[in-house]
Amino acid sequence: MAHHAMLLIVVLGVLSITTPGTTHPLDPLSAAEITAVRTAVLASPLVPARPLHFHYVGLDEPDKPDVLAYAYGAAGSSSHALPPRRAFVIARAGGQSHELRVDVTNASSPSVLSHAVHRGAGFPTITLEEQFAAQALAPAYPPFAESMRTRGLLVEDVICSVLPVGWFGGAGARRVAKLQCFVAGATANYYARPIEGVTMVVDLDRLAIVGFRDRVAYPVPKAEGTEYRAGKAGPALAGPAPAPGVVVQPEGRGFDIDGHVVRWANWEFHVGYDVRAGAVISLASVHDEDAGLRRRVLYRGFVSEIFVPYMDLSEEWYYRTFLDAGEFDLGLWAYPLQPGADCPANAAYLDSYNVDQDGNPVKVRNMMCVFERYAGDVAWRHTESGFPSQLITEVRSDVSLVVRMVVSAGNYDYILDWEFKTSGSIKFVVSLTGILEMKATSYTHADEITVDAHGTLVSENTLAIYHDHYVTYYLDLDIDGTNNSFVKNIIITTRRNTGNPTTGGADTPRRSYWTVRREVAETEADGKVDVDAVPAPTCCS
Amino acid sequence: MAHHAMLLIVVLGVLSITTPGTTHPLDPLSAAEITAVRTAVLASPLVPARPLHFHYVGLDEPDKPDVLAYAYGAAGSSSHALPPRRAFVIARAGGQSHELRVDVTNASSPSVLSHAVHRGAGFPTITLEEQFAAQALAPAYPPFAESMRTRGLLVEDVICSVLPVGWFGGAGARRVAKLQCFVAGATANYYARPIEGVTMVVDLDRLAIVGFRDRVAYPVPKAEGTEYRAGKAGPALAGPAPAPGVVVQPEGRGFDIDGHVVRWANWEFHVGYDVRAGAVISLASVHDEDAGLRRRVLYRGFVSEIFVPYMDLSEEWYYRTFLDAGEFDLGLWAYPLQPGADCPANAAYLDSYNVDQDGNPVKVRNMMCVFERYAGDVAWRHTESGFPSQLITEVRSDVSLVVRMVVSAGNYDYILDWEFKTSGSIKFVVSLTGILEMKATSYTHADEITVDAHGTLVSENTLAIYHDHYVTYYLDLDIDGTNNSFVKNIIITTRRNTGNPTTGGADTPRRSYWTVRREVAETEADGKVDVDAVPAPTCCS
Repeated sequence: MAHHAMLLIVVLGVLSITTPGTTHPLDPLSAAEITAVRTAVLASPLVPARPLHFHYVGLDEPDKPDVLAYAYGAAGSSSHALPPRRAFVIARAGGQSHELRVDVTNASSPSVLSHAVHRGAGFPTITLEEQFAAQALAPAYPPFAESMRTRGLLVEDVICSVLPVGWFGGAGARRVAKLQCFVAGATANYYARPIEGVTMVVDLDRLAIVGFRDRVAYPVPKAEGTEYRAGKAGPALAGPAPAPGVVVQPEGRGFDIDGHVVRWANWEFHVGYDVRAGAVISLASVHDEDAGLRRRVLYRGFVSEIFVPYMDLSEEWYYRTFLDAGEFDLGLWAYPLQPGADCPANAAYLDSYNVDQDGNPVKVRNMMCVFERYAGDVAWRHTESGFPSQLITEVRSDVSLVVRMVVSAGNYDYILDWEFKTSGSIKFVVSLTGILEMKATSYTHADEITVDAHGTLVSENTLAIYHDHYVTYYLDLDIDGTNNSFVKNIIITTRRNTGNPTTGGADTPRRSYWTVRREVAETEADGKVDVDAVPAPTCCS
Repeated sequence: MAHHAMLLIVVLGVLSITTPGTTHPLDPLSAAEITAVRTAVLASPLVPARPLHFHYVGLDEPDKPDVLAYAYGAAGSSSHALPPRRAFVIARAGGQSHELRVDVTNASSPSVLSHAVHRGAGFPTITLEEQFAAQALAPAYPPFAESMRTRGLLVEDVICSVLPVGWFGGAGARRVAKLQCFVAGATANYYARPIEGVTMVVDLDRLAIVGFRDRVAYPVPKAEGTEYRAGKAGPALAGPAPAPGVVVQPEGRGFDIDGHVVRWANWEFHVGYDVRAGAVISLASVHDEDAGLRRRVLYRGFVSEIFVPYMDLSEEWYYRTFLDAGEFDLGLWAYPLQPGADCPANAAYLDSYNVDQDGNPVKVRNMMCVFERYAGDVAWRHTESGFPSQLITEVRSDVSLVVRMVVSAGNYDYILDWEFKTSGSIKFVVSLTGILEMKATSYTHADEITVDAHGTLVSENTLAIYHDHYVTYYLDLDIDGTNNSFVKNIIITTRRNTGNPTTGGADTPRRSYWTVRREVAETEADGKVDVDAVPAPTCCS
């Protein structure tokens, strides 16, 4: 799934020194705060081992009551007293995973508040530097070079992906990853040219290859016509271009961004950032003009995980059960958005800071965009033809506000939208694009396939392996306050032949109807919906 | 559901005499052809009874081989010889339903080709004139006037809907409908003020009330704050307006409309019209630049029905199982689209002709629109960070072509879109808007409800009754020609603990995976998908 990025730090590593002061308790850590975290951790006697690598640095969010008091006040008027600023750190040193909390309220005198060593299963996310270093091991590893020579491939044309090994029970003792390789050469689309059958295992702490197997060889797909770069793609991929469209707003933008707070139409919310989750939406509320008050909708929401299991059991594929957030960090794979293409011309952009493994802030320009979306759609309309004297047509255009981030997790690109509607609803839109993860095969035509191929033959010698993308969200909804419940509506069908005493006592010719059973979920477990369950039944005669 | 329109003929009834000549075998009947049909039917001795009312007049489509020969030629080159032009007519006269075929190839000498009397169950769609006349019966009907007086309501404030009675087996002997009434008065939103408990039955052939029952009385909801007309709606409904958006195309429109043929990007298709189905898309094909040929995608597609059953068994509701196409005609309830609101500023519009019950053509301006849709979305993108020397980002904006029609079937408004993508796919989008169908009740708060209310209490004395909207499509797909099959992909989960001999023979730590079973549907019945069936299973460990 995810793939390392040799160039990342060069491209994105221009650190801006002039960061605006923190104005909101949920603002992500500033460059100055990140630098203060680094200073405090490296100066702390609690973790003396070196090298020390930073795997996660992010805001240690204040407790919810403190944030609510800041935003809405204790008794209706907000206090606007900033709670202490704290960072949470996951670092790796001396073969151990360390968790630290650092106070950076005064960035010139930061202090480590707590330290713990993680003892259970699981490891921190893989840093970009580790992926770069792991990938660089392959060409210099003699058994791999020999395998390439046997296949007639040039080692210098090869690019390898660093892939987590999955988790199949037990507490893994070693922090390892696997390398799977491709032929790049003339095409940017090396995913279409997998070198099937060769697997290397890398120890990420020692940065050494600790396992190698060349199990089977299949032809590397020719992958003709799969180049995608403008000017290099063939006519079929380039295609007849439709006329471009541009959204303009004759009255100007309808939103403003004050620090990280966005105000638009009846909405107000905070756009934070976390390297693992990406965009974090907090304190979203709508102004109710009729009631003359601001009504709370969402305390906090973000993408908590993207789980991508593949369905091929072979040695090179069974372990591909990627956790794009928990193994790779969504924010680490978000690159600058292309104005006018990734987001329309009327968009505004937000920059963010990531942290390299040495603890330095790395600015990513245009990591998120905010824009008013107008697609020519209708928010609400009605034509009323029931009056003798007039035909009434009332149409309200659908303009919404979108917060967008794009995560290019190796071959796949996720476009993750939060769309705010004037009706008070929030719509999550996930668009999957990019390139399929493909497997080389000896098949050249679907007619040759007689056993389960675990995928679709999409081209000569090329299988696209079956897989899922589960995008899960953390949602702390505060509809009109914290005292609310999750209600499940379950459709129940009744098939019948006799009168219903609850509906006027009359017999009815209807043989079936459905109704709704409401269940209040007392706990999160109660709120689970089994996607295997029988869906809403068809009805009725 | 659907509701009559007293004003319709006045508003829409300006007949344009200058109609362009027919240029395509699937073009809808022109005004001149409709007039010729009327002349031929009224002059025919086959149906002497009077009055004769036209319930349907539409194109009797040529056989598919003839259309394909016209469009693509017998051996690659199209013949462009127009097949004969014929109309299909359903008329009601002498208490019988008549079906006629009329040749209008020469509109100045039309001839009736065939005639049959319909003997089975079912009746033609209800004409607008019948609904107008049926509705007008209520105020003058003494028992109804007495019921209104008892309730303290003014008969002149009342508006009644004409509702089909549904079908519950047997061959209904009489063509009847039911009247259900509302208080209009000061608000345009009379659906929010139902007069519950009073039902009238109207004989549509005799235009007389043949049944009446005042079964129960509930308070008419006050329906405060439900007015929707601009300038009359309260602050909560008006809300803070977002800044308007306008889609502009700096290089101009990318499509052209030649008669009823639309060409855009790689697409070419025909937009027809039928009063029952609305927009009819035919002969859709994409140009494959790589192969240097035009590839067929869809021979013909349209909305075949919209089925809307309600889930309340009471006498006033059980029969509300509307067939919006088959009982009302979708095209009869399509009103002129509002430029810049129903469709964006860059849209083009198509007019259509309906036929009144006397057989005269009735022009509807702007019945359909065609526009390039640009929502700031991405058709395809990828950022490639795998190369040491460059970060590649390639983004292609998502511009698509939409054919839109809006059907205001009484309280509901259906926005029916055909969206053509440059990828070669066609997306159907159905947007439901308008006003809920509501039932008066004595409940004023949800806590009072102890038995099944068959709906949701949306306001004081107001239940929104549970219901479905099934929108079904007729789709004759010709993917690369007529010789293709419908393939169902069914996801099958395997839970396992041992090695799989089909995947390299290796034991695997995976406990489950899924694969896909492909089933070719030989017949339409084979192609059925049971929406009650268990969906794709969750997976995997």
